[in-house]
Amino acid sequence: MAHLLSASCPLIISPCSKNGPSSLKPSLASLPTSRTSIQPFKSLSINRKNGQRQFSVRATTLQQPGTKAGSGSDERSRQQSRPTRVMVVGGDGYCGWATSLHLSKKGYDVAIVDNLVRRQFDDQLGLDSLTPIASIHDRIRRWRSLTEKDIDLYIGDVCDFEFLSEAFTSFKPDAVVHFGEQRSAPFSMIDRSRAVFTQQNNVLGTLNVLFAIKEYAEDCHLVKLGTMGEYGTPNIDIEEGYITITHNGRTDTLPYPKQAGSFYHLSKVHDSNNIEFTCKAWGIRATNLNQGVVYGVRTAETEMHDELYNRFDYDGVFGTALNRFCVQAAIGHPLTVYGKGGQFEEQFSVNQLASLVTKAGDKLGIQVQTKSVPNPRVEEEEHYYNAKHTKLIELGLEPHLLSDSLIDSVLNVAVQFKDRVDTRQIMPSVSWTKIGAKPKTVSA
Amino acid sequence: MAHLLSASCPLIISPCSKNGPSSLKPSLASLPTSRTSIQPFKSLSINRKNGQRQFSVRATTLQQPGTKAGSGSDERSRQQSRPTRVMVVGGDGYCGWATSLHLSKKGYDVAIVDNLVRRQFDDQLGLDSLTPIASIHDRIRRWRSLTEKDIDLYIGDVCDFEFLSEAFTSFKPDAVVHFGEQRSAPFSMIDRSRAVFTQQNNVLGTLNVLFAIKEYAEDCHLVKLGTMGEYGTPNIDIEEGYITITHNGRTDTLPYPKQAGSFYHLSKVHDSNNIEFTCKAWGIRATNLNQGVVYGVRTAETEMHDELYNRFDYDGVFGTALNRFCVQAAIGHPLTVYGKGGQFEEQFSVNQLASLVTKAGDKLGIQVQTKSVPNPRVEEEEHYYNAKHTKLIELGLEPHLLSDSLIDSVLNVAVQFKDRVDTRQIMPSVSWTKIGAKPKTVSA
Repeated sequence: MAHLLSASCPLIISPCSKNGPSSLKPSLASLPTSRTSIQPFKSLSINRKNGQRQFSVRATTLQQPGTKAGSGSDERSRQQSRPTRVMVVGGDGYCGWATSLHLSKKGYDVAIVDNLVRRQFDDQLGLDSLTPIASIHDRIRRWRSLTEKDIDLYIGDVCDFEFLSEAFTSFKPDAVVHFGEQRSAPFSMIDRSRAVFTQQNNVLGTLNVLFAIKEYAEDCHLVKLGTMGEYGTPNIDIEEGYITITHNGRTDTLPYPKQAGSFYHLSKVHDSNNIEFTCKAWGIRATNLNQGVVYGVRTAETEMHDELYNRFDYDGVFGTALNRFCVQAAIGHPLTVYGKGGQFEEQFSVNQLASLVTKAGDKLGIQVQTKSVPNPRVEEEEHYYNAKHTKLIELGLEPHLLSDSLIDSVLNVAVQFKDRVDTRQIMPSVSWTKIGAKPKTVSA
Repeated sequence: MAHLLSASCPLIISPCSKNGPSSLKPSLASLPTSRTSIQPFKSLSINRKNGQRQFSVRATTLQQPGTKAGSGSDERSRQQSRPTRVMVVGGDGYCGWATSLHLSKKGYDVAIVDNLVRRQFDDQLGLDSLTPIASIHDRIRRWRSLTEKDIDLYIGDVCDFEFLSEAFTSFKPDAVVHFGEQRSAPFSMIDRSRAVFTQQNNVLGTLNVLFAIKEYAEDCHLVKLGTMGEYGTPNIDIEEGYITITHNGRTDTLPYPKQAGSFYHLSKVHDSNNIEFTCKAWGIRATNLNQGVVYGVRTAETEMHDELYNRFDYDGVFGTALNRFCVQAAIGHPLTVYGKGGQFEEQFSVNQLASLVTKAGDKLGIQVQTKSVPNPRVEEEEHYYNAKHTKLIELGLEPHLLSDSLIDSVLNVAVQFKDRVDTRQIMPSVSWTKIGAKPKTVSA
């Protein structure tokens, strides 16, 4: 049985994620969601030589360790005694590291697959995480010493299929959580080579993951991060993955139209289209999660030791508005709001975020100011935005809403590490229109 | 002024294309269309520093040589004495060669950009054009000797931006017609490496073309071939590029949902999304032509000499149904129809095509039989299909419908070269479900 779940869901890495919703562990619970939903892929009947094969949809997610999700075949019954094996591609990154620790804590066998290119981006652009982060080797060693749990490590590039094949045949994953993509819109808009890199890395890497699943682990469930940015800002409600259209007297449920606003967002649209095709043609089992901006820095696991700290990006390339605002508040820099401040992240406007940070600053005795800066992106300053998010909640997810306590937590981290702030990193430095074909080099 | 035209249009390279419709010369006239239309891109207002910049749509096409389309700026006025310069990417291929000759004949300055990889595909897969084709060097020399017209030649890969930059800065195109993509769905479904090659070559090559236009020729008009296969087979009418949706009481005109059925078709969807974004963000001027299957082999120009012959593919990888049927009829092989024969090419069913070829065979005294073979693709055998095609006709295009005389012409070519037929090439050899991660090698 093949299925593609497409979910809309802004994620929050909350200050405390101990009590995630049980029905969605572990694929989503490590990243508690504030608003979530899943739109099942419409059923499609496809002829095979031996008759009709019906692809239908089951809203399964990964089960608890030792109780693998699946069809209950003999093969699976025999394997039920071992923990479910989850490969986290991009497990050294922001979402990947928190997810890997959470899954390991829950008793899953976890392997991290990562080429560490995210660290190289920082080196090349002269950026750094606000929080000091240990090497992936030290991170994993520290986790083992604290918990006696091993996390397997495969250092390499999923665009290299020989490497990926080795990782698959050696680790034998039951599920793959794929965070292994270049995930910054501004990075993709720096210059031609980074635009091309973003689409090459993301699209071809995901193609390789799909082929690896087909070749080596056909029942493996793929959990893939997309982005709400795939949808752009249509003037109608955003449905979860699919929309039912009645047109000239006929009706069909079709993929929701996409209008991505950067080469990065486009790479995610390309991924979604490729994944959907392989679900239809090969029966790949995939959950495509179109999340919004991910917030927060501490989880129950990363809090356990300095060497388990997650990264915290506040720069103009990888940082998000909330992080940037908290860092600006911590060092007494005015909050920099683009244009009219009406851009939307999740379903908050940037002005609303700025106001929340100002309020949180008041509590810490910090007086926070706001100033306007030019919008580097090509986007409409004001527009309708209403994204549906009900299906994951129907599955039992308890959303963690963006709360004052989360903002307090982020602001506290910013204050704790304010001596590490590099003010040159804060301002947006990438223009959507000035991007050129020539490589943009960075000088000190 | 930026615009993106998205047109739906099955193309026919007709036996005689001397009298193309004047209003669409030269970008489309060399490939007379049977059913055509253009759906203008909806207007989008974008804030710039100096106020609102309105991207609107003009249904312009390339003008006659010496009367360049454009804004009429001083720079352009000064240049109006020289012929319009058209770069044909993929100019050694099936559509590209016929187009290049037609444009050259009409008085345009033409440059062919090609890495000749299409010929390498044949070499590697053990395939060959039914018609013997000369080298690109001999083709161009012969054209010069017959017409005293030069066609510039740039041998290289548009995925190599250093090469493409050199071609752009040296030739200085006013328009780029981009055929330079891997264009076979079965080729993209042979194995992982060819699937990845197809998306890498097509998507990143087109990204490079877009960057080259932005960097070196901002007013250059891009004419890009998409495919009707981007839309798949929705159960509602296919509109031309965009569809107006009323949903929960609100209305917007959005990109028509895409449901591509192979890694090749997906690459075209990715291209379309990338092109649309650059039209919005940078003001790129593009016409994205979602054509159907292209038929025919002779044009007024290729008929002029043996060395100008165009290629004729009838094999299971690059051949189309009509070509395959005509070759089968010519050698007394039963016409091989997949499954129920209800698959659609253009708006003919394959059964209708088979019946047309049978009728054409009768006229030549050939008795044609038909037999069913398994469908190698994953697709619905029977489905609704109604693609709109009115906008190019509104612009003045006179469609050349798929006619008995066209089929007679193709069948005559097949009969002429029937001694060159390799019957091992005829049958479909690529399965949509058996595609594997391991490279598929070809033995003699």
